[in-house]
Amino acid sequence: VPEFDLIELIRSRCLALRDDVVLGIGDDCAILEPAPGHELLVSTDTLVEGVHFLPDSDPWALGWKALAVNLSDLAAMGAEPAWALLSLTLPCADAAFVTAFADGFGRLAAEHRVALVGGDITSGPLAVGVVVQGFAPRGTALRRSGARAGDAVYVTGTLGDGLAGLRCLQATAGSALAHASAEAREAVIGRVTRPTPQLAAGRVLRGLASACIDTSDGILADLGHVARRSGVGIEVLASSLPASPALCALYAGDERLAVQAGGGDDYQLAFTASPERETEIVRRLAAVECAVARIGRVVEGRGVRLLDDGGAEIVLEHRGWEHFA
Amino acid sequence: VPEFDLIELIRSRCLALRDDVVLGIGDDCAILEPAPGHELLVSTDTLVEGVHFLPDSDPWALGWKALAVNLSDLAAMGAEPAWALLSLTLPCADAAFVTAFADGFGRLAAEHRVALVGGDITSGPLAVGVVVQGFAPRGTALRRSGARAGDAVYVTGTLGDGLAGLRCLQATAGSALAHASAEAREAVIGRVTRPTPQLAAGRVLRGLASACIDTSDGILADLGHVARRSGVGIEVLASSLPASPALCALYAGDERLAVQAGGGDDYQLAFTASPERETEIVRRLAAVECAVARIGRVVEGRGVRLLDDGGAEIVLEHRGWEHFA
Repeated sequence: VPEFDLIELIRSRCLALRDDVVLGIGDDCAILEPAPGHELLVSTDTLVEGVHFLPDSDPWALGWKALAVNLSDLAAMGAEPAWALLSLTLPCADAAFVTAFADGFGRLAAEHRVALVGGDITSGPLAVGVVVQGFAPRGTALRRSGARAGDAVYVTGTLGDGLAGLRCLQATAGSALAHASAEAREAVIGRVTRPTPQLAAGRVLRGLASACIDTSDGILADLGHVARRSGVGIEVLASSLPASPALCALYAGDERLAVQAGGGDDYQLAFTASPERETEIVRRLAAVECAVARIGRVVEGRGVRLLDDGGAEIVLEHRGWEHFA
Repeated sequence: VPEFDLIELIRSRCLALRDDVVLGIGDDCAILEPAPGHELLVSTDTLVEGVHFLPDSDPWALGWKALAVNLSDLAAMGAEPAWALLSLTLPCADAAFVTAFADGFGRLAAEHRVALVGGDITSGPLAVGVVVQGFAPRGTALRRSGARAGDAVYVTGTLGDGLAGLRCLQATAGSALAHASAEAREAVIGRVTRPTPQLAAGRVLRGLASACIDTSDGILADLGHVARRSGVGIEVLASSLPASPALCALYAGDERLAVQAGGGDDYQLAFTASPERETEIVRRLAAVECAVARIGRVVEGRGVRLLDDGGAEIVLEHRGWEHFA
C-alpha cells in the first residue's frame, strides 16, 4: 500500500468540514484562517507503543485516544477545538490498521468538529503524534499559574479509573482483578481506552476557574504543576477524591486511594477557584452534565500535600507518572 | 535526568522572543496571537532514526535538520515562519544528546526568528517530530495546484547534493566515493546534514510563481505532485538540471543524472511561472542570493517526463523516494 493511499484512507474518514480551513491535506502546508478576536491555542502529545499504550492495542481505540488526550489539553485551557495534525509512524503499511485507526480518530473529531488538516506517515516503530489547535476569546484561556491562597481545589468526574483500566487490561488469568465483576472491569477499561476530553467543562470554566490542568499524570502530580506555576501550596483531602462505582467495586481502602491519587490517564480537569464561585461552577458544570467534587484548598507555601480527615499527611509510594524518573 | 530538566535544557536554548507568543512552554497549550490579515500555515514532518537519518547521527545536525525540513515546507508556500513545536522520542534521558540537539535546533530557529512554544518528550525509539506554523498575507500562499500549460518550470540552487551527501556518509573505506576529493565529500555531506530552507526565496515567489513545492522526495517525484494537483503534465530537460561543483566532482554522466533527478533531501524550491515573469523572478531571487535554473515546461496532459536534448524520454530506474513503496 503506497503512502498516498494510506493518506487517502485517513482523509476520507476525517472529513469534518470547517469554513476556516482554506486548504487541507495535500499540499506542503495547510492554510488556515484563525478566528478574529481570539487567541490560538496549540498543543501536542505523542503516544508510543509499549510506553503509552499496550502492544497490539485495538487500532480504533488508539485513534480515538490519540486525539482525546490532545483535546484534553485544549479542554484544560478552556479552548474551542478547531484543527488537528496527525503523524503516524508505522512498522508496515497495514491498511486494515490505518482504516480502523482513522475511524476511531475521525469519530471523535466529528463529535467536536475538529478538521484533520495535515500530518505525515513514516515507517518505524509504532507511534502516534497529534497536534491540536483551538481558540479562546482573547485573554480568557485558563492557565496553570492563576491559583491563589484561599482558592478551593476541584476536579471533574472521578479519579483512578484510568490506572484501574490499565491494570485490568494487563491482569493475568489468576489475578484478583481477573476475577472481579466483568461490568466493573469493562467500565474502567473503557475509561482508559476511550477517554472523554472535558471540552464543555473547560469552556464553562473560563472566567470562573483561577487555574486549570487536565489530569493525565495523576492528580497529585498534576496539581504539583499548578502549585509550582502559581507559586502556592495545595492541600488535598484524601477522603474527598471522587471514585466511580466501578473503581469501588475493584479496590477498597488504601489501595483505592493509591490508585485515585497516583494514577494517571484520567483526563479530567483539576482546577482552582474562589469558593465564592462554587455555586455558579456547580450549576454551570451540571448544565453540561459534568460532575465536580471539591477536593482541597490552595494555601501559602509550596508543594502538594495529601491529608487524612485529621489533617495528617499521607505519604504515597507513587505520586504519579513521569518519563525517565 | 527527569523529563522537566530535559525540557528546561531545550527551552533555555530556544529563546527566540516574539511578541505574538502570549504563553510559551510550560502549560497545557501554548497561547499565540495570529497576525491580522494573514492566513496561518501549518506543517509537520517526523524524522525516525534508521529511516530519515543514520543511527548515531550528530545530535546538533539532527536538531538543525529536523527544523530545517519543516521550515522548507513553509518556504514552499511562501510563508513567514513564526512558531514551532518539538516532539522528541528518546531511548534514554541523555542530557548531552538533548543539549547538542537543542543547540542545533535553536541556532536555526534564531536565524529565522522561530519561537519554540511547546512539544513533548517521551521515551521510545529515537524520533523527532516538528510542527511549524507561519503566516502569509491572505490569499498569497503558494500552492502545488496552480501550474498551467505554457508555464516554465524552475528550481532554486542545485539538485542531487542531498543524495550524494547521504552516500558519502555511508561510503565504506574501499568505495570510490571514499577516495573522492575530501572537499567535495564535505560539501555534499554538509548539504544533507545541514540543509538550508529557502525561506527568502519562497517569500520572493509570492505573486510570481503559479505553483511551488520543496524538493524533498526528488525533483521528478516532487514535480509529480505539482502535475497531479494542477491537472497538467510537466516535461523536464535532463541537461538543464543544475549541479553543484561538488556533485560534478563526485559523479559524471548518467550516474550524475540519476542522482540529480532521483535523489531527495535537497530542500530547494521547484516552481512554475509564466515565462514572461522570468526576468523579474531571476532579479528578485538574485536579490536574496538565490540561484535559479529553468528546467522544463508545463504541458497539457499528465505526469512528469524527463527528456534528453533530442526530446526523447529518459526512463530512470528510481524516480524518487516513497515510504513503503
